[in-house]
Amino acid sequence: MPPEWSSSPPDLLLVIDRTSGRPLRAQLEQELREAIRSCRLRAGERLPSSRELARTLGLSRGLVQDCYAQLVAEGYLVTRPGSATRVGAGAATSPGAAGPRAEATRLVADFRWGVPDLSSFPVHDWLWATREAARGMTTAELDYGDSRGSSVLREVLAGYLRRVRAASGDPELIVVCNGYAQGLGLVLRVLAERGVRTVAFEDPGSPATVDAAAGAAGLRAVPVPVDEHGIDVRALAATDARAVVVTPAHQWPTGVALAPERRLALIQWATDRNAVIIEDDYDAEFRYDREPVGALQGLAPDRVVSLGTVSKSLAPALRIGWVACPPALAGPLAEHKHRSDRGTPTLDQLALARLIESGRFDRHLRRMRATYSARRAALLTALAEHAPGLRVTGLAAGFHAVAHLPAGADEHRVVAAARARSVGLYGMSACRASRAATPARLVLGFGDVREQSVVEGVAAIGDLLTDRRRSTGP
Amino acid sequence: MPPEWSSSPPDLLLVIDRTSGRPLRAQLEQELREAIRSCRLRAGERLPSSRELARTLGLSRGLVQDCYAQLVAEGYLVTRPGSATRVGAGAATSPGAAGPRAEATRLVADFRWGVPDLSSFPVHDWLWATREAARGMTTAELDYGDSRGSSVLREVLAGYLRRVRAASGDPELIVVCNGYAQGLGLVLRVLAERGVRTVAFEDPGSPATVDAAAGAAGLRAVPVPVDEHGIDVRALAATDARAVVVTPAHQWPTGVALAPERRLALIQWATDRNAVIIEDDYDAEFRYDREPVGALQGLAPDRVVSLGTVSKSLAPALRIGWVACPPALAGPLAEHKHRSDRGTPTLDQLALARLIESGRFDRHLRRMRATYSARRAALLTALAEHAPGLRVTGLAAGFHAVAHLPAGADEHRVVAAARARSVGLYGMSACRASRAATPARLVLGFGDVREQSVVEGVAAIGDLLTDRRRSTGP
Repeated sequence: MPPEWSSSPPDLLLVIDRTSGRPLRAQLEQELREAIRSCRLRAGERLPSSRELARTLGLSRGLVQDCYAQLVAEGYLVTRPGSATRVGAGAATSPGAAGPRAEATRLVADFRWGVPDLSSFPVHDWLWATREAARGMTTAELDYGDSRGSSVLREVLAGYLRRVRAASGDPELIVVCNGYAQGLGLVLRVLAERGVRTVAFEDPGSPATVDAAAGAAGLRAVPVPVDEHGIDVRALAATDARAVVVTPAHQWPTGVALAPERRLALIQWATDRNAVIIEDDYDAEFRYDREPVGALQGLAPDRVVSLGTVSKSLAPALRIGWVACPPALAGPLAEHKHRSDRGTPTLDQLALARLIESGRFDRHLRRMRATYSARRAALLTALAEHAPGLRVTGLAAGFHAVAHLPAGADEHRVVAAARARSVGLYGMSACRASRAATPARLVLGFGDVREQSVVEGVAAIGDLLTDRRRSTGP
Repeated sequence: MPPEWSSSPPDLLLVIDRTSGRPLRAQLEQELREAIRSCRLRAGERLPSSRELARTLGLSRGLVQDCYAQLVAEGYLVTRPGSATRVGAGAATSPGAAGPRAEATRLVADFRWGVPDLSSFPVHDWLWATREAARGMTTAELDYGDSRGSSVLREVLAGYLRRVRAASGDPELIVVCNGYAQGLGLVLRVLAERGVRTVAFEDPGSPATVDAAAGAAGLRAVPVPVDEHGIDVRALAATDARAVVVTPAHQWPTGVALAPERRLALIQWATDRNAVIIEDDYDAEFRYDREPVGALQGLAPDRVVSLGTVSKSLAPALRIGWVACPPALAGPLAEHKHRSDRGTPTLDQLALARLIESGRFDRHLRRMRATYSARRAALLTALAEHAPGLRVTGLAAGFHAVAHLPAGADEHRVVAAARARSVGLYGMSACRASRAATPARLVLGFGDVREQSVVEGVAAIGDLLTDRRRSTGP
């Protein structure tokens, strides 16, 4: 028996028919040839050792060796001393292979939004937490679990939400999801099932909300305008919506905080209409002013569903988020989560719990706050130098800013002109429900842009942001 | 700055209002008291160091220290030399905490089905693969990815399906999902969107199919009987179904393989009706006979959607599965996956790819085949001894058997009588669409039952399986 894992042979489905009367070696050769021709075995793939294959198929090892030798002679297989037998290059043409992807043009700076600094992902801390979690994991935790998520993570998240977000954190009312998108989708399905027909969303806001609403049992989505105090609650009240998706701590994408009187008015609206407020607490962890804005959910836990995610604090690829919901919705939400996928991967959940509990998550957040704070400062300094007079707002939290282009400027032209200079800019129009007569704005994401690139990028396109003739000319 | 992560303070949301004119120390004390009283901070939770909190709030360290001292005096906080300041026990009562869960009765043996041997999960190999995957991961792979899944895993899975399942493995036609349940749900949604109204399922079969069908845009689910050759294709053709969920390699739960002529008839049915066959390839990796049954999908890749999972080969808690689908469905399926949750966690996917590529997955499967094979033998031996004459079928693959109770026996009574002797048995009636006049059968899962427990469990209840008087008496 080979002691090393690296020499373990792969599995291979070959059928030998002992009742057919045909010689076994001929059958095996034909099976292997056919497997290679039909691309079930592709160039470079390793074959089982002759010993292993002989044992699996109940043949003599010599027969398998002869068969391999024959196919090597025919070019189907290749072999080198001390190495596994593999399928020969060019033994069959490989169908269905995708062509090479065009490399994206290399940009000086790409101010795309919604992505944190991916290169700062604390990979060693995550691996440490995964290892620790796996060590402490019980056998039962490897089974199908509570569809709401691991009780360990729910307990830790509840404590975290209470501490950091002034939220009403109760582990029994938390459902762990695969990121924000799944959480929103499931909440909307639950609401649709309970008779909600229309869901309101912020305008400007996230275009994904409309898609999620349509995907959830055909809910109608209506836009409600956002001004400098957040969502216009009077306009909301004029709709027939019985649910609304809001970003109170740091409105997406304008960056304003929902004003205190609006917070109260919104809760009053929900109470009067027997409606539900869905709070997207997407980048709550990153704030730069002294007085942070607590979660709306803490004020009215019976009316507010609060959605959180690690996509901005750690990395989108982890696909972990959570829903903290009113008692009435917890049961139906758990049921929908069960129906959807039986629960979020347990080891990942336990790793996140360990990361938070150990203090490493908080440490990462502090480090990232310093990083984003420096990028934010670099952005403001560079804009002041290269686009003097440009109005920039929305910077109290998170990692994006809003640049107000001069009256009459054309977002699309500015974006195109910047692209011609290898700088990625993104207009706010993509976040708007109505495209008519809206002021030209850019959403400048700086989460995944290094300080140096921020400076170089702004230097390259600063003139486009203030000079009307260049940005709107023919 | 404390250099150790273990002394990193947690984040804490406290609001100090400098415009109110109230003393800052009084404000801070009140904020902390309130956080403890309202259970945002709970007994035993760690507070930030005075230095850290002072920096965060822009206060002097002395002020924070005085404030902490005051709250220690009041019993809200506790402190010990060289240790972090924590919330005192009993500082506030903790609401919403769930009561202690009743411990499940300890069983001699629990022949529940659908679960592999959880204690054999190759945790070291998985951690190794995770570490390797993380090391080789690009920054871009930490971002939102292709909703179909990592191209690395899809490539590896395609090779694996071709090799082991004689399937038509094309990475472009594979969508990675969070286990089988999500895969089935998404496929049914796609079919519903394309006009399918009725989906057929095997009877007996998995009750989850009916639930999934109802959950997917209200598809109607119709049962089709299974006999000793698998699903009755003639009965299927008598329904108006344009999709069917089948388990051809090892029918769940009867354990029969779909007979060759039925395989062809099923594909013919799909071609004639422009219908789709959904193949649940759930325990394909574990077979004990020499001539394994290849995936149906390999015969008709344009008609068959094949669903796989690691829930039986590794552990359900990983939540990884895949769908290999016809070209026409690949796009819509990727779209539904995107809408559902943006994709399966990337690091987990890369770890699975590494596990398979390295040969460690195959090695694990071989080890498990030996384990299950031994349990299967122990089960048969014990049944022959303690329940002589009992008919046992369905053992060609997987890790469950079907015990045929004597005519007239009552499944529920046998199950209840076994439970009274601390042995978990499960009747096949839970898998049946129609309950009237069906033969009494037990589905004996031995995946997560040790050999010793198999022997002891059967010894304890063997008489119930053959002795009609005991199992059906008053």
